[in-house]
Amino acid sequence: MDEILETWPHLSSAERMAIFASIPRGQVDEFFLDLPSRDQCEIVHALPENERRIWLRLLDPDDAADLIQLAPSDERSALLALLDPVAQREVAALMAYQEDEAGGLMSPRFARLRPEMTVDEAIAYLRRQAPQFETMYYAYALDERQRLAGVVSFRSLFSADRETTVREVMRTNPLTATEDMDQEAVAKLFSKHHLLAVPVVDSANRMKGIVTVDDIVDVVQEEASEDIQKLGGMEALDAPYLEIGFWRMVQKRAGWLAILFVGEMLTATAMGHYEEEIARAVVLALFVPLIISSGGNSGSQATTLVIRAMAIGEVRLRDWWKVVRREFWAGLVLGTVLAVIGCSRIWIWQGIWRPYGDHAKVVALTVGISLLGVVLFGTLAGSMLPFLLRRAGLDPASASAPFVATLVDVTGLVIYFTVASVIMRGTLL
Amino acid sequence: MDEILETWPHLSSAERMAIFASIPRGQVDEFFLDLPSRDQCEIVHALPENERRIWLRLLDPDDAADLIQLAPSDERSALLALLDPVAQREVAALMAYQEDEAGGLMSPRFARLRPEMTVDEAIAYLRRQAPQFETMYYAYALDERQRLAGVVSFRSLFSADRETTVREVMRTNPLTATEDMDQEAVAKLFSKHHLLAVPVVDSANRMKGIVTVDDIVDVVQEEASEDIQKLGGMEALDAPYLEIGFWRMVQKRAGWLAILFVGEMLTATAMGHYEEEIARAVVLALFVPLIISSGGNSGSQATTLVIRAMAIGEVRLRDWWKVVRREFWAGLVLGTVLAVIGCSRIWIWQGIWRPYGDHAKVVALTVGISLLGVVLFGTLAGSMLPFLLRRAGLDPASASAPFVATLVDVTGLVIYFTVASVIMRGTLL
Repeated sequence: MDEILETWPHLSSAERMAIFASIPRGQVDEFFLDLPSRDQCEIVHALPENERRIWLRLLDPDDAADLIQLAPSDERSALLALLDPVAQREVAALMAYQEDEAGGLMSPRFARLRPEMTVDEAIAYLRRQAPQFETMYYAYALDERQRLAGVVSFRSLFSADRETTVREVMRTNPLTATEDMDQEAVAKLFSKHHLLAVPVVDSANRMKGIVTVDDIVDVVQEEASEDIQKLGGMEALDAPYLEIGFWRMVQKRAGWLAILFVGEMLTATAMGHYEEEIARAVVLALFVPLIISSGGNSGSQATTLVIRAMAIGEVRLRDWWKVVRREFWAGLVLGTVLAVIGCSRIWIWQGIWRPYGDHAKVVALTVGISLLGVVLFGTLAGSMLPFLLRRAGLDPASASAPFVATLVDVTGLVIYFTVASVIMRGTLL
Repeated sequence: MDEILETWPHLSSAERMAIFASIPRGQVDEFFLDLPSRDQCEIVHALPENERRIWLRLLDPDDAADLIQLAPSDERSALLALLDPVAQREVAALMAYQEDEAGGLMSPRFARLRPEMTVDEAIAYLRRQAPQFETMYYAYALDERQRLAGVVSFRSLFSADRETTVREVMRTNPLTATEDMDQEAVAKLFSKHHLLAVPVVDSANRMKGIVTVDDIVDVVQEEASEDIQKLGGMEALDAPYLEIGFWRMVQKRAGWLAILFVGEMLTATAMGHYEEEIARAVVLALFVPLIISSGGNSGSQATTLVIRAMAIGEVRLRDWWKVVRREFWAGLVLGTVLAVIGCSRIWIWQGIWRPYGDHAKVVALTVGISLLGVVLFGTLAGSMLPFLLRRAGLDPASASAPFVATLVDVTGLVIYFTVASVIMRGTLL
């Protein structure tokens, strides 16, 4: 079974349906439940109408809602109608939420108790209701108006004295998520407090459902993938790499690539300004790629660090000054390291081949000072851009490495040629 | 309490101890348990010796093992001695594992049953033992030699008939992790199968402990952070950005920056080869940054996509040919888009300012063809490098965006000047 799941993402639709049909009956339901919603939807879609019902009814309401939301919009109501009336109501309620909100992640099937039950009554009750729960880790005590009064873990319920009431063992004021809370914020709750489930409540503290930690693992992976792809200089893909349509993928990449390209055109304009200088001292042109790429690389490091630290909550908006100070010194040190390596290289080459004639000293000085300036600027720009973007209400991850590199390339050229015109005046220029 | 946890990472050691001392007694234990191991260790370390014991004993064995492993090596045995004898044995056993292995993540306190117990006996037994379990979601049926015979969820135990035996309701051949399994592989198990806990067994199928999903959320975050930092062109940091020592951070960044810089020096060498061409046609130099950065950006997109898809198991080594074909066409399309924009820009500038004199056509042709070639090469190189690295047994994430950009910069120059020397022969060159 595991091997099938392993090769599954790499098969065509027809191959998948053939394999699905070949799995023995005792194993096929577990296999189906293990698939991502997208693949479940594909299978249900490919089956004849009279075979769809058992698969849809096999799913828990939150998973059924995910599947139906992935289906073409004109098929959704037909799929919903395949469920039993209770599940239909539950699923329809879940479908009102965005997929990436707490409401879209939650299951309405949690273990409910009344605060005044005794522990013994509670355990007997839970035992009767067990088959329909999504999770058996916490039970939720609701008052007569469905408001959340407290949470009790099965562990403490089990170890409590039989005659105490639920109210006595439950924890009041538990952590909750609101229905429209972003899934990234929900994931942070889980990872900060090491929870297995979080209750979802509406504005009147009425309990709507629970989000369980197994769904959060997927959320964390998904959010990390999105951030990584944005950092790589493209829009986040909305499907696995091998499954997304070719033109859709190209579109997600071409947009940013074109924007970066148009930005990078400024380098040609900047270089045009220094055309005369280059004509007089061609040696200047030789170091252009080296200098601008050093700025780009140091900017890429700084922006990556800050964006990731922001995403997992290590750095907040108001830490910007701490980050500036840190990155200023980091930029100075890193710039000095590269300047020393760069000058040594010119020195050694000069010792062996004398490619710079009588001007090795001014060339080395120009390259060294420019490197220091460009790396310092790259580091500062790369670390501050995510703050500016967040401040402006945008996603800091849009300050991708290529974006910072482009910004630094143009500025790097200006720094380099300015330094050159000061240092080389009277000798090469 | 939440506000304290929120500001916690941003405080100095002394501030932390002052706040810790000020938390009321009824809340301080929960606060302590919510902290990451690193911070727990810092607190225990800062407390006088006679206050350390209660905090250490508060922890579950797996968390105590993590804390002790973070302490200076000469203090570890003193800390271990503070635990009660049973916990000492458990913690010492856990400390034999690497922190990033299944063994290092697991808890030895799981719910054990015998297969021949009845459901009623099992529930009564679990009820007595409840306080000491790490999780109450699954119980594990072990035979007389401690080998894992099966797993039963509390849900099915609760809903089963009282007189059936555990053997009849348990699932045999459950998914297991081995003690030395890498934490990334364990995380994949969880996310693929939506599990709440996985049993860890040794080579003889003897059960050693369980890994629970709440620890996996942290693992997934941690692995994503490592990959993101490597993609940004540095070594992964081993502590949060604002907490890691300045020189340690600079060291993690300077290494790769220097390597990339030395690689990038080849661009100066390559440019040196074309010095004469540049001297004859300075216009060539103007487009150098534009062309090489386009290669770098497209390479960065491709490598980011492939590395992430590999990390989460969407793409395997043997998919390389599929990826080559996909990226070849993507590279052609993306290259064409940029070439069209690039040529248009030259055309428009020429229409307005005539900066390229009589040679606009050859300049546009050279830039256009070079862009196509460089983007195609960048895309292919960026997508294939992760495969080569994995094939060689290295971490594919080392093919960071800046690394690919450096590789493509040098090749891009060669492509550009070769195209130029063919097209411009007889006109500008």
